[in-house]
Parts: sequence; structure tokens; C-alpha cells
Amino acid sequence: MYNLLVAQSGGPTAVINATLVGILQGAHTSSKVETVYGAKYGIEGVIEDDILNLNELMKDTQALATLKYTPSSALGTCRYKLKDWHMDEEPYRKIVETFYKYNIKYFIYIGGNDSMDTVDKLTQYCKIHKHDFVIVGAPKTIDNDLNLTDHCPGYGSAAKYIATTIAELERDTAVYNVPAVTVVEIMGRNAGWLTAAAALPRLNGGNGADLIYLCEKEFNIDRFIADVEEKLKQKNNILIAVSEGIKDKNGTYISEQMSSGAVDNFGHKYIAGAARALEKLVRDRIGCKVRAVELNLMQRAAAHIGSETDVVEAMLLGQKAFHSAMDGEGGKMAAIKRVSNDPYRIELITVPVDQVANHEKMVPLEWISEDGHDVMEEMITYLKPLIQGETNIQYENGMPKQYKLF
Amino acid sequence: MYNLLVAQSGGPTAVINATLVGILQGAHTSSKVETVYGAKYGIEGVIEDDILNLNELMKDTQALATLKYTPSSALGTCRYKLKDWHMDEEPYRKIVETFYKYNIKYFIYIGGNDSMDTVDKLTQYCKIHKHDFVIVGAPKTIDNDLNLTDHCPGYGSAAKYIATTIAELERDTAVYNVPAVTVVEIMGRNAGWLTAAAALPRLNGGNGADLIYLCEKEFNIDRFIADVEEKLKQKNNILIAVSEGIKDKNGTYISEQMSSGAVDNFGHKYIAGAARALEKLVRDRIGCKVRAVELNLMQRAAAHIGSETDVVEAMLLGQKAFHSAMDGEGGKMAAIKRVSNDPYRIELITVPVDQVANHEKMVPLEWISEDGHDVMEEMITYLKPLIQGETNIQYENGMPKQYKLF
Repeated sequence: MYNLLVAQSGGPTAVINATLVGILQGAHTSSKVETVYGAKYGIEGVIEDDILNLNELMKDTQALATLKYTPSSALGTCRYKLKDWHMDEEPYRKIVETFYKYNIKYFIYIGGNDSMDTVDKLTQYCKIHKHDFVIVGAPKTIDNDLNLTDHCPGYGSAAKYIATTIAELERDTAVYNVPAVTVVEIMGRNAGWLTAAAALPRLNGGNGADLIYLCEKEFNIDRFIADVEEKLKQKNNILIAVSEGIKDKNGTYISEQMSSGAVDNFGHKYIAGAARALEKLVRDRIGCKVRAVELNLMQRAAAHIGSETDVVEAMLLGQKAFHSAMDGEGGKMAAIKRVSNDPYRIELITVPVDQVANHEKMVPLEWISEDGHDVMEEMITYLKPLIQGETNIQYENGMPKQYKLF
Repeated sequence: MYNLLVAQSGGPTAVINATLVGILQGAHTSSKVETVYGAKYGIEGVIEDDILNLNELMKDTQALATLKYTPSSALGTCRYKLKDWHMDEEPYRKIVETFYKYNIKYFIYIGGNDSMDTVDKLTQYCKIHKHDFVIVGAPKTIDNDLNLTDHCPGYGSAAKYIATTIAELERDTAVYNVPAVTVVEIMGRNAGWLTAAAALPRLNGGNGADLIYLCEKEFNIDRFIADVEEKLKQKNNILIAVSEGIKDKNGTYISEQMSSGAVDNFGHKYIAGAARALEKLVRDRIGCKVRAVELNLMQRAAAHIGSETDVVEAMLLGQKAFHSAMDGEGGKMAAIKRVSNDPYRIELITVPVDQVANHEKMVPLEWISEDGHDVMEEMITYLKPLIQGETNIQYENGMPKQYKLF
């Protein structure tokens, strides 16, 4: 019997712990694993031998029921990128050392495309150095930008939060009888998947956002002002959704002038402030009442309005990753294949991690309207099933109950 | 038989429509009122004769069940302040004209302290000019700053949203193993009631916000930096809650340097940007990772995480206002008197509106810690019952169902 190690990486989501629960459920009902360990703060915990024994948690169904609905990474996370081992072998050696020390054969890494790069590099390294470890990925990202999977756990819950919030903001901004523009900035890095959720209130007869700008299309400031002026002729209160990553025709972020220029460990530009840039623009060029709203950390942490579909799929993908590891499928990521939209049906599959790592899957351009300020029916059809179902969160003292590992 | 007119005023809340529902329920079960009318966009709709007949809605229990949980003002709202009638009698004349035109005897105005000023001025005007109208107020404000009522409808739901969100942000910001500061800006104008809700996660064993600054106490920038540095010695991830209205010893808003200087119709300064000002300060003076989060419109519109206690009380206050009107109690506001904390019990009372208008009720200084960066047990004891109970919202296509009046 061998042991299993699990770690979580990248930005938090509402359901990354549901995937952890799925893995623990898999291990608990398997005769192939003796002990499940968790590394604190992602791969950094593996490198630094910061390891927790999760066997007690695995047996505690009450705790797992709460953990499933607790947002963010219970094990902590990191934004650590492994360099090519030829350039810096030290972290690889330390990882392997930790694996041997804890008699670990299986390692499951829950994360986004940068984490899949880690799974890929480690798999390659172990293969070359004849270490018999099975390293598997489980997907996670609110950005929904992972290749080879129909969608990503975390996305559905964030989209449900955004759809609900946009519907509420639509009511909120409609109350005054004076021209007003509200610009809502939505996460997603270079992909507009999340921003598209601002259209969903239309399923219930609302407008959702009146104008929706995804970062896949070039953002033109003059056209934007013309769009807003046109809408203001039709109605007083305009609600606008924009991706944080909207760029002009030169590929420069619209928020650039307000950004700090800081860069994270992956070399990603710190992007924020698209809504504020547009707020200023509307104030200067149109002169009406205008307000910028950033959904900020709330859109990835709001487990209280999570999608039950998303939670269940996140658990199932954890189980799938576990069984793939048991089957010796190293270098793979558990993924979702959509079989049909209505009724909504999926299959769980595995895909080669090297084709996921360092790719970004964008919204197809044909799902964005010709005029560039709305999404097409296909986008709504794709998104609708992912926000269905309300979670059965337990409340304590009027607040959602949470499970805290450390 | 006479008719009743109702209107909503001031900023939106999650439960202002529940008060409207309470009034409609009162009228529906009374033999004293023939027709209920609603004025669109607050008192402006009364002045401009923009009136809806609400009798169909009153009988539609299905619609009322949805409206009860629909955030913001279904009738629309305004920020219109009546001048003294000696200075400008025209609007008063128009209001009275509308009252006579629709055979209105009773007028209930749902709103905050500025709206209670309208109730007061109209009551005085009608008394002097021998118009036999009964004008009554029903309270509403997330700021919880109304005089003579234990608390205000809208506050409990906003506080529940903030408590839940702070608990989620606590999980979100705890995941990285590097020093980081997150500053969350919370509404409340000049009162810190809402900001205090950032302490509530402690009831469930969390930290809530590590540092909490209410606007009732002078905010000192140097002490703030010292507080943050001290906390960073104890732990890596610091969560800070600040009132939007924090001021320095001269009474200048901390956000002043970033504010637009714009003033609304009531002469209130446009205040926003306290968190951003502090974000910049932490970056400049401490130099660690720092992020500003504004809960913005979401904190007043998030009916999906409303407090059932708040919804029920909002309805009951609508009914109380209705019955006060029927009893001829003009110039009064329906209000809440707290009888006990545990078990939580209240009484519905009426209070003279002239003692509510233009007052702001602040958090007692003894409910704020000596060091100025936390709240005392009394504050938590006061707040805890108000966020209890989860609403029974109906979902449609994965989003809360809403009722839209026009």
C-alpha cells in the first residue's frame, strides 16, 4: 500500500475544497491508499516538507459536508512556478525527497493552467529520472480558460454569483429617474467567460447588463462612448459589464494607465481598474452620473451563492482524478466532456496535461455579437446549465458554516 | 372610504419592498381603504402626478411573495428634499393637489432620515393649511442611523451580507503564505453600524476582520500603520474593515484626496475611496501586498443573502405604519423597541417623526474598543439577532426570482 498526496494551487474558488472532498471520498473507499497527506500552500509545501495527515478528516463525514461548501483552499495555495529542471533542479529534488519520505506514490494537484504546468514538468522529470510516481491534475479556475475540458469547476459558482449580482444591481440601479451609468468589472484574466454571465438575468425576463464587453474582442473607446450614448437614448439607467482584461487594438489593457505596473510570480500583469478607467471616461465624455463596481474577491469566494451543479462536478472531478491516479494515468488531468445541453449531461474524462498547461481557452468569437457589445445565444445556452441548483449550506448564527483545516 | 398612497425614497435596501408588501397586506385586510396607489420615484411622483394603482398587486399573493424578496425600490426612488414651504410652496401645492385628485387621505412614505424630514414638513404644512391628510413614515436604511428606533429595516440584511462576505474573504485571503493586507470599505455614511458587522464571523470561531475602524472615532493614519505592522507580526494575512466615512481629527474624510468633491441633492458629500486611500498608504509605508475591496452597491442590494428576521420586521413595520395611519397618527414613524436580546423580542411602536428627521444615530463610543480598532461585546450582542434566519427565496433558472412592477 502506498500513500496519496494532494495540494491546491492558484487563485481560490468556491468549490476547490469540493474537489478535495471528492479525492478524500475516493481514497476512503479504496483499498489502494493507506494515508492521504495534504501539502500546505501548494507545491511549496511539498518542497518545504510542510505536510498534514488528512486521514482523520477523511473519515469525518460531518467535517467533509461542511468543507465541501467552504470557499477557497483549505490547504492554502501558492503561485509558485517550477523552472525547467535543467535550469534549477533543486526544487524537483526536494519534491521527490518528500514523496519518498512519506511513501507517496500518487500526487494530485488541484489548480489552473499554471498548476497543470507543474504536473507536466514533474511528470517529465520523474519519467526521465525513473521515479515511479503517478502525478495527476484536477482542474480549478473561475476563469474557465482551461483547454480540453468543456468547463472548469469554480466557473459555474462564480457565474451564478455574477448572474445573481447583476440581477440585483439591475434592480438597484433602476430606481432613480435620472441618467446614470454603472460599470461592473468582472474577473477572468484574458478570457471573457465570466463576464458573459452578466447576460443570464435575461433568462428570467430581466435585461442583465445592457452592454457586455468581453476581452476577446478589441475594445474601442470611441465606439464604447457611442454605445453608451445610444443606450441612454433608450433608457435612463445603463448597466455595463466589462472584463478586467479588455484591451485596445494594440493589445494594451484599457486599465493600463491606472495599473501599478506590478507583475506576479508568473509574469502576469496586475490588471485592475478597467471599470474605473471607463468611469472616468464616461464622466469626462458624457458627464452623467457614473459609478464603477468591482466584483473583486467576492466573485471567487461567494460560496453562499454557489452552484450545486458546480459543487457536484467539482467533487466528481476529484474522484475521477483519484481513480485516474489509481489506474496509473500519470500526466493526465480529469476533465469534463459535455454530452448534451438539454437535458444537461456530461462525461468525466482524462486529458493529457501537456496540452492543458500554458494554454488559455478563449470565448469563441462567434459567441460574441458582431457589434462587440453583447453575447450570442450560444453563450447563454452553454452557460445556463452550469449555474443550476442551489447549495444546501448549513447556517450557524446567521452565517454559512465553514470548515477550517488550520 | 378613502384611498391610500405609498411611496419609497432614498437609497435601496434588500427589504424596502417587504415594507411595501406589509402596507399592502394591511390595506387588503382593512375596510377603511378602497384603493392603494403608489407614487413612482418617491415624492417626485406625487408632485408630478406619476401614480400607479396597486389594487391588482395587492390581491396577487404570488406576486407579493416574490416582491417581498426583491431588492431595491419597486416603485422607484428619489433624493428630493422639500424646501421650507415659506421659501417654495409650489411642490407642496402640487402634492396636495395629487392627494385630492386621487381622494387620498393616507400617505405612507418609506425612507430614511431625509424622507422623515419630508413626512414632517408635509405634516406641518397640512396642519397649518387645514388639510385633513394623515402622513406617516416607515423606516428604511442599511445605515441604521435613524433616531428613536432600535434598528432599521435593511440593516440586518446588509449586515448579514457583510458578515458572510467577510467570513468568505477571511478564507480567501488566508490562502497565501506571504504578508498581505486586504482593506474592505463598508457603507454607512457617518455611522459605523454596518462596518461593525465585520466582527460577526467571530461568533463562528473565525477572526472576522482583524482590524475594524468605525467612523465614530477619529482615524489616525500613523496609528493605523502601527496597528497593521503590529498585526503583521502575529499573522500573514490581515483583513481590515473600514467605514467609508472615516475622518481625521479635523473631520476631513480620509478619502478626501481621492473624492470627486461632488455633492448630492441633500448636500451630502460624495464619499468613496477610503479603502483605496488606505491601500495606497499601506503600499507606500509598509510595502507589502495590499488590495482594496469595496462592497459597493452589493451590500444594499444582496437580497439573496437577506436576513429573514429583517424581512419579517420590514413587513411588520409596513403593517404598523398602515395601522397608525388608519388610527390617524399623522407625523409619526413606525419603529422598533427591543424588549430583550436572548430570547430576541421586540415591540412595534410609533415615534414622532420630527425627532427622527435630520438626526443621525451613531454607534455609542463605549461599543468601540479603547484602542479604536475593534468593537466591544455589546456591539456584537446588539447585532447578532438581526442577521438570524435565512430567506426562503424562490429560484428560477439558477437565479433568485424577482418581481418587477414597471
